[in-house]
Amino acid sequence: MNPNKLLGSEDKVNSQNHELEQMDLLFDQLFPICRSITGSGVRKTLEILSEKIPRLEVKGVKSGAKVFDWEIPKEWRIHEAWLKGPDGKTIVDLENHNLHIVNYSVPVDQKIPLQTLQGNLYTNKNLPDAIPYVISYYRPRWGFCMTYNEYEKLTDGVYHAYINSELVDGELNYGHAILKGETDKEILISSYICHPSMANNELSGPVVATFLHQRLAQWKKRRFTYRFVFVPETIGSITYLHQHGNDVKQNIHTGMVLTCLGGNRPLSYKMSRNENAPINHIVQHVIKTKSLEAVVRPFTPIHGSDERQYSSPGFNLPIGQMSRMVYGNYPEYHTSLDNKGLMGIESLLKSVNEIELILRAIELDGYYVNQCPYGEVKLDKHGLYPDINEKGTGLVTQKEQLNKILMLLNYADGEHSLTEIAEKCNCTILDLESIVMLLKDKDLIKGPFIEKRGLTT
Amino acid sequence: MNPNKLLGSEDKVNSQNHELEQMDLLFDQLFPICRSITGSGVRKTLEILSEKIPRLEVKGVKSGAKVFDWEIPKEWRIHEAWLKGPDGKTIVDLENHNLHIVNYSVPVDQKIPLQTLQGNLYTNKNLPDAIPYVISYYRPRWGFCMTYNEYEKLTDGVYHAYINSELVDGELNYGHAILKGETDKEILISSYICHPSMANNELSGPVVATFLHQRLAQWKKRRFTYRFVFVPETIGSITYLHQHGNDVKQNIHTGMVLTCLGGNRPLSYKMSRNENAPINHIVQHVIKTKSLEAVVRPFTPIHGSDERQYSSPGFNLPIGQMSRMVYGNYPEYHTSLDNKGLMGIESLLKSVNEIELILRAIELDGYYVNQCPYGEVKLDKHGLYPDINEKGTGLVTQKEQLNKILMLLNYADGEHSLTEIAEKCNCTILDLESIVMLLKDKDLIKGPFIEKRGLTT
Amino acid sequence: MNPNKLLGSEDKVNSQNHELEQMDLLFDQLFPICRSITGSGVRKTLEILSEKIPRLEVKGVKSGAKVFDWEIPKEWRIHEAWLKGPDGKTIVDLENHNLHIVNYSVPVDQKIPLQTLQGNLYTNKNLPDAIPYVISYYRPRWGFCMTYNEYEKLTDGVYHAYINSELVDGELNYGHAILKGETDKEILISSYICHPSMANNELSGPVVATFLHQRLAQWKKRRFTYRFVFVPETIGSITYLHQHGNDVKQNIHTGMVLTCLGGNRPLSYKMSRNENAPINHIVQHVIKTKSLEAVVRPFTPIHGSDERQYSSPGFNLPIGQMSRMVYGNYPEYHTSLDNKGLMGIESLLKSVNEIELILRAIELDGYYVNQCPYGEVKLDKHGLYPDINEKGTGLVTQKEQLNKILMLLNYADGEHSLTEIAEKCNCTILDLESIVMLLKDKDLIKGPFIEKRGLTT
Repeated sequence: MNPNKLLGSEDKVNSQNHELEQMDLLFDQLFPICRSITGSGVRKTLEILSEKIPRLEVKGVKSGAKVFDWEIPKEWRIHEAWLKGPDGKTIVDLENHNLHIVNYSVPVDQKIPLQTLQGNLYTNKNLPDAIPYVISYYRPRWGFCMTYNEYEKLTDGVYHAYINSELVDGELNYGHAILKGETDKEILISSYICHPSMANNELSGPVVATFLHQRLAQWKKRRFTYRFVFVPETIGSITYLHQHGNDVKQNIHTGMVLTCLGGNRPLSYKMSRNENAPINHIVQHVIKTKSLEAVVRPFTPIHGSDERQYSSPGFNLPIGQMSRMVYGNYPEYHTSLDNKGLMGIESLLKSVNEIELILRAIELDGYYVNQCPYGEVKLDKHGLYPDINEKGTGLVTQKEQLNKILMLLNYADGEHSLTEIAEKCNCTILDLESIVMLLKDKDLIKGPFIEKRGLTT
Repeated sequence: MNPNKLLGSEDKVNSQNHELEQMDLLFDQLFPICRSITGSGVRKTLEILSEKIPRLEVKGVKSGAKVFDWEIPKEWRIHEAWLKGPDGKTIVDLENHNLHIVNYSVPVDQKIPLQTLQGNLYTNKNLPDAIPYVISYYRPRWGFCMTYNEYEKLTDGVYHAYINSELVDGELNYGHAILKGETDKEILISSYICHPSMANNELSGPVVATFLHQRLAQWKKRRFTYRFVFVPETIGSITYLHQHGNDVKQNIHTGMVLTCLGGNRPLSYKMSRNENAPINHIVQHVIKTKSLEAVVRPFTPIHGSDERQYSSPGFNLPIGQMSRMVYGNYPEYHTSLDNKGLMGIESLLKSVNEIELILRAIELDGYYVNQCPYGEVKLDKHGLYPDINEKGTGLVTQKEQLNKILMLLNYADGEHSLTEIAEKCNCTILDLESIVMLLKDKDLIKGPFIEKRGLTT
Repeated sequence: MNPNKLLGSEDKVNSQNHELEQMDLLFDQLFPICRSITGSGVRKTLEILSEKIPRLEVKGVKSGAKVFDWEIPKEWRIHEAWLKGPDGKTIVDLENHNLHIVNYSVPVDQKIPLQTLQGNLYTNKNLPDAIPYVISYYRPRWGFCMTYNEYEKLTDGVYHAYINSELVDGELNYGHAILKGETDKEILISSYICHPSMANNELSGPVVATFLHQRLAQWKKRRFTYRFVFVPETIGSITYLHQHGNDVKQNIHTGMVLTCLGGNRPLSYKMSRNENAPINHIVQHVIKTKSLEAVVRPFTPIHGSDERQYSSPGFNLPIGQMSRMVYGNYPEYHTSLDNKGLMGIESLLKSVNEIELILRAIELDGYYVNQCPYGEVKLDKHGLYPDINEKGTGLVTQKEQLNKILMLLNYADGEHSLTEIAEKCNCTILDLESIVMLLKDKDLIKGPFIEKRGLTT
């Protein structure tokens, strides 16, 4: 679906243009921060997000704490880092780009001949103008990343490698915000905040999450409670599960990880490992009924983002992952070329629109129960039916609505979900929204219920 | 299957010719009656059917009684109705055709200019020689129906519309007949009796039901009890469910609504909403195994006959609907052109034959249990097997029977239905009838049982 | 898969050459014995097998004993049998071929004209050089079998038919051997020993069973206990079930009947009637994942071997049947042309190799449970992961192993079988063997378990 179709009115267009500007500003605030899985970059990022999400609660877990099979690492603090050539000129400097340093580099202040130094230099020959993104969180290393073109120009001689960093007892930080709905059943929306200065594979996630939060906060009502989670990838979601996993497991209805949501490609959904995940069914439904143009990827624990943790076998949470220009599937991935121009801010707005549509469908889905289930409802009595059978009384336009009413009343038996009913009607679940509201207003149906329930229950 | 194949002997051909004559006579008795959903037309119809079905019990429910979401309407009595032109000549007269009056018209005696009158005149431009069938049960209206050709000839002037009708407190009538079988489990056969002077879309149903009743009454034994129901459509089946729904729900095995069973087309089965309905499985089986030429339609609550009520979500009875020239799928539907010539009496005989075959299959189906289930049965000991393995001992013709015996004994485990076994044998369930009888005679199997049962139960 | 691939080393090739010689010797010992369903032939056969399978226990059940719907017949003893022509010359003599006599012939010593004699002569016109194999276990008959070419030469005159046989109270014999494993859960391997002097349709089964037993006895460990059964076909397996059926039913995990395992064709598996039979799943898996070239036949109770008894509805054991050149599907079946040359000893070795592979897969399959199921396992901590994300660190060869580790840990949830996990990895279950061992060594997984078990159980 063209996202503009979701807007419909000039007001909405203006509102979306405003959102686009706000997204752009937020992006520019977050981009220059030198994030890692711990340290001030994460804290600064959470502070900026708090301005948009006032209820965002920021937490920390101390270095050395055990989190399942893992341990919170020491906090990395980076103050200064540069490499100077034999002639004393600066080759690379952290000041110029956050990717120049291997993330979590230990301190060094050494004069080294080029040959020895080469083990500490990282380039990407396939993209000779790109600075690659390299990390070494769990084994002490240091190193510099540079474009292959610069690297090629290096001449023999002694270089000066200087990294002023610390690995100190500190904490790992994350943030979460709970947006209350009518029920305690939760929808989890998680993104990560640990990559320095990359666009698609970092900021697309938290920016989309932030603006999705704003949309949901404005909804007139929410059936579900929404839990927004911002964590460093992997160790952060493991920590989150360690601290809040029981709560999440108990309350969760469904959810998604947001990652790499920029680019011109259609929305790409990675299925939840949990085959009963409502989001699996909804996404397949909206695609099948052409409510949304999107593609589906199977679940795999091999590649991906934090859904790998949420889908670890002890949790197996019913969440999927939303992406667009998928990690590993574009050459600029994990390099300095993954920037705002490549990503495109408009694609983030499109992602917000499309994910909001999916959430609306999830809110609407469930099992409904006809309150007059014995024999047909006498529709005319409830103002729902023409009372003469003759052709040509101008009811043609009402006919489709009438058919949907008959289908919905018949299948509102507590056993057929609204997506199933929509597919029997050859329409999308959102096409039934107005009829559901009408029949609820007239007390002819109750619902939605999450679980199946026999009519007599 | 050619219905003649079901006959086989000259006796049967004669018997069927006799049936055909009887059907024709019954049709001619019932056709002229001015039926509606209430009133003397229904009562007269039930009286005539009682002559063929002596055990038919006729009942009534008072006007004003609540039946689920509905209310029994006042009884409509129509005495006289005509429209005269400006020159005093009769344009249409109820005496000439029951369809000339809008069914349930309120009384009127008025002189009206043509222009005003037109809102009360109904025609069918696509079939200019047909009188359309129009009803207005639940909103007070009056009107006349006429051919479009006659309508075109009307000239300006003042017309005299005269309808001598009454809407009085009376009752809604229906009839049912129970044909006892070996068990209390019931097969419901329902048809409607509320349309005046139409053939396929009215009389085909009750005529087929009546002669089916005669056939079943002559069967040597019936495993199931048969419940024949004759009701006004919609309000009548709702009333029936209101009065007898609990009994029906408790005892029903399966069943069918009979409607529009005339015409040259193959039998057309509308699936039961209830996916476990035995009749769904049997009809698909007899089609798949080429025992019967028939087509299948999906269930829908949008169009149809009384299966819409029986399939309302509070009942969800395991019944389907049998038709041939389906309502709405032939141009003469709901007009005076739906007459005996269009329908064809022979097609009703064919319907009786085919539905009887389906009922025989339902009687035979179920779960059978081998009484010697440990190791193979020693067939020769029971007179079921050749006792030498040499080729050419003239047993070729017995070979297929032997294979069916082996299949039946092996799968008579209380877990595989006879239709499943037949399909494993690449035959139709009725091809196994003689083997079932043989093995039952020898006490090698027991059954049929309706429910699965493990061998040790 | 080329069976040589299963060997891999020169040692194994030598070991298999040795096996081939041993098979050939065993075959030659067993071939000349005049077996029937009872009598000294069966006992002699079991005695020879005992030399290879020291733990083989030989049992007998008395003539006249009831075994389910059957009765143990009298024991047949055959001492001498010949037919002489009008000129006194010997036409056929049991001394020359065991198939010359109708198995279970009653005694006779009679001079008969050719015309009368013909009812007692059996030939196979389609294979004019073959002596057909004819039996008459359960009805008293006598007769001679001969080639059609010899039969054609017979001239009119009086013949002397002489059969010195006895039908005496004796016993029906069978043997079984239990090879203990870590658990009491059993895998049943059954073959038959009742046909005289035929190769594919007799000796291929017990020879393969014997050498399979030797292989399994040499395995370092067996998860399952193996029950090897040698019985006369049909009456023998019925007797076995009568004597041991409860034990078998209680302990069985899965199993197979071995029959007709010679010839050049690929392995041919007849599905178990019991759809939950582990062997059904494993065989389909190894075929699907190209671990083995084999074909699958559906279950039928009409043709086959002892699986017909094991699959009788009162037992419905989870066993299939292994074959290669299937009974009834080669012209030499049930004739003297079914000999060693037709069968090929090498094909038996191939059968042993392939069935051993299937058994290894069954041993490995089951449900495994991750012992660190919350969040991902920190692989580097367990020596299972590279600790830097840079490309080109020579880990390409480890990549596939790493992916399999991630898949296995994620799906080792007690709900996904190892075959399912292998198929998600696009590999065969045996490709996961080393990883399973590695992860078990590191206490990261437990299993295999036969039943599903939730992680929290």
